[in-house]
Amino acid sequence: MTAPKDRTPAENAQLALLLDVAGTPKPGNVDRERDLEDLRFEHFLAGAVGSGEGLRRAESGAPVGAAFERAVAGMSRQRGGNTQFGCLLLLVPLVRAAADGSLSPEGATAVAEATTVADAVEFYRAFEHVDVAVEDPPEDAAELDVRRGGDAAPALRTRELTLYDVMALSEDDGNAREWTGGFARTFDAAESMLEDDGPAPDRVARAFVDLLAEEEDTLVRTNHGPEVAAEARRRAAEARGDPEAVAELAEAFVAEGINPGTTADIACAATFVALERGMPV
Amino acid sequence: MTAPKDRTPAENAQLALLLDVAGTPKPGNVDRERDLEDLRFEHFLAGAVGSGEGLRRAESGAPVGAAFERAVAGMSRQRGGNTQFGCLLLLVPLVRAAADGSLSPEGATAVAEATTVADAVEFYRAFEHVDVAVEDPPEDAAELDVRRGGDAAPALRTRELTLYDVMALSEDDGNAREWTGGFARTFDAAESMLEDDGPAPDRVARAFVDLLAEEEDTLVRTNHGPEVAAEARRRAAEARGDPEAVAELAEAFVAEGINPGTTADIACAATFVALERGMPV
Repeated sequence: MTAPKDRTPAENAQLALLLDVAGTPKPGNVDRERDLEDLRFEHFLAGAVGSGEGLRRAESGAPVGAAFERAVAGMSRQRGGNTQFGCLLLLVPLVRAAADGSLSPEGATAVAEATTVADAVEFYRAFEHVDVAVEDPPEDAAELDVRRGGDAAPALRTRELTLYDVMALSEDDGNAREWTGGFARTFDAAESMLEDDGPAPDRVARAFVDLLAEEEDTLVRTNHGPEVAAEARRRAAEARGDPEAVAELAEAFVAEGINPGTTADIACAATFVALERGMPV
Repeated sequence: MTAPKDRTPAENAQLALLLDVAGTPKPGNVDRERDLEDLRFEHFLAGAVGSGEGLRRAESGAPVGAAFERAVAGMSRQRGGNTQFGCLLLLVPLVRAAADGSLSPEGATAVAEATTVADAVEFYRAFEHVDVAVEDPPEDAAELDVRRGGDAAPALRTRELTLYDVMALSEDDGNAREWTGGFARTFDAAESMLEDDGPAPDRVARAFVDLLAEEEDTLVRTNHGPEVAAEARRRAAEARGDPEAVAELAEAFVAEGINPGTTADIACAATFVALERGMPV
């Protein structure tokens, strides 16, 4: 009998993707109680299933870029579009660090810093699988627009840009800042979840609101501009801690089309770290 | 770039486990809108994640018993107890048949009939991972009580019982009847789902009520006796087709502790077949 003792890092990452969408209320996101018009709960379930193979490759030591590209390719095999691109961008280096026994800000940073130009090329290729909302690149960096996908490979190679370098150039993006900033918000939120109590999806939902209350969501800024992003943060800070107010905010954000997706990515990554550190399910 | 074209059979089986718990209302079951007291939505998510490795082994050609035992071992790594034992018992031979390109009543029956005594031993070992509600065995078959787990191995070997034979001896169980009856209800319900329309979880929920309306649930009979099982079937038949009545039934069954788990197992297996045959997600 082959009795497995604990979930593997890849399994915990897949479970984090599922707990992330099961937690409720998560204002502006698809959650256990809310669908968006063309993006529904089951698209996230299928995205989590499809991500599995890439996450297992990350665990087994595949290069970060290739594992990420495979995870996104699998994730995209559903009809909702982009469900978990950003989550996977954070999860892949964290899974790699966990598999190495170094799931810490330092360990994750070491994985991020060790990425290569080949990893950057795979990252760009991942954009070919799914439409991702991104800011326009600076005028002098049009050839590095992620929307070029694999066509950006020559520019990446000429400039000798690693995936870490690409992230360092994307300082306006909340996920990129996690990559280059020791995954600080991820590890902080994981500790909050571990100190919290109750069912795991409830902890995920509370951590999400806390994260949104603390810092503007960069996807909301990309889609709606800085004023709406600042206002969304303020409204989350006001509602935080009051379940009724958070539930109202969830209805309001869905109605207004405000989707704090970057905050959800960080909450998902934090869920992975919390699971690895013993959050019970 | 390694672009995966379709979900593999193991991936569709994992997605079926998730769609099964996401569909709502599924009277008496944990679903997207309902938890039971000690058995919650997230336990099913973790069960589905943990089942993955065993399902992949089934796809790769591992013996049915060993793949099932591994799937149950992984499924049981959560605090809710038995979430998906019965679903997996149906899914494993179906995944094997799908991987062989023979996902049909005949193909699945061929897999079932090809099982060996070693498969039966692994099936018994699977009961060591989790408490499963079962009927008492006949008086002359106490040594074959599944609750003995691996201790039943000598009796299985002496009597030369294959896993198919064990199923044939368990004719009171709805899942065993699928095994020995060409998975008839599974394939019928899959066709209903394919003919239905709307989001996949809604199709799953409707198929569940149809199945329950058509035949008594054997888990309800085991837990509450034949009269309650007959009455539950009758109530499902009355509510069927009326969303409001089905929602009321869902509340009533949860309040009364009526959990039609075998019907959910067949609905889950049918979801797998429907996914393999193109039900969109």
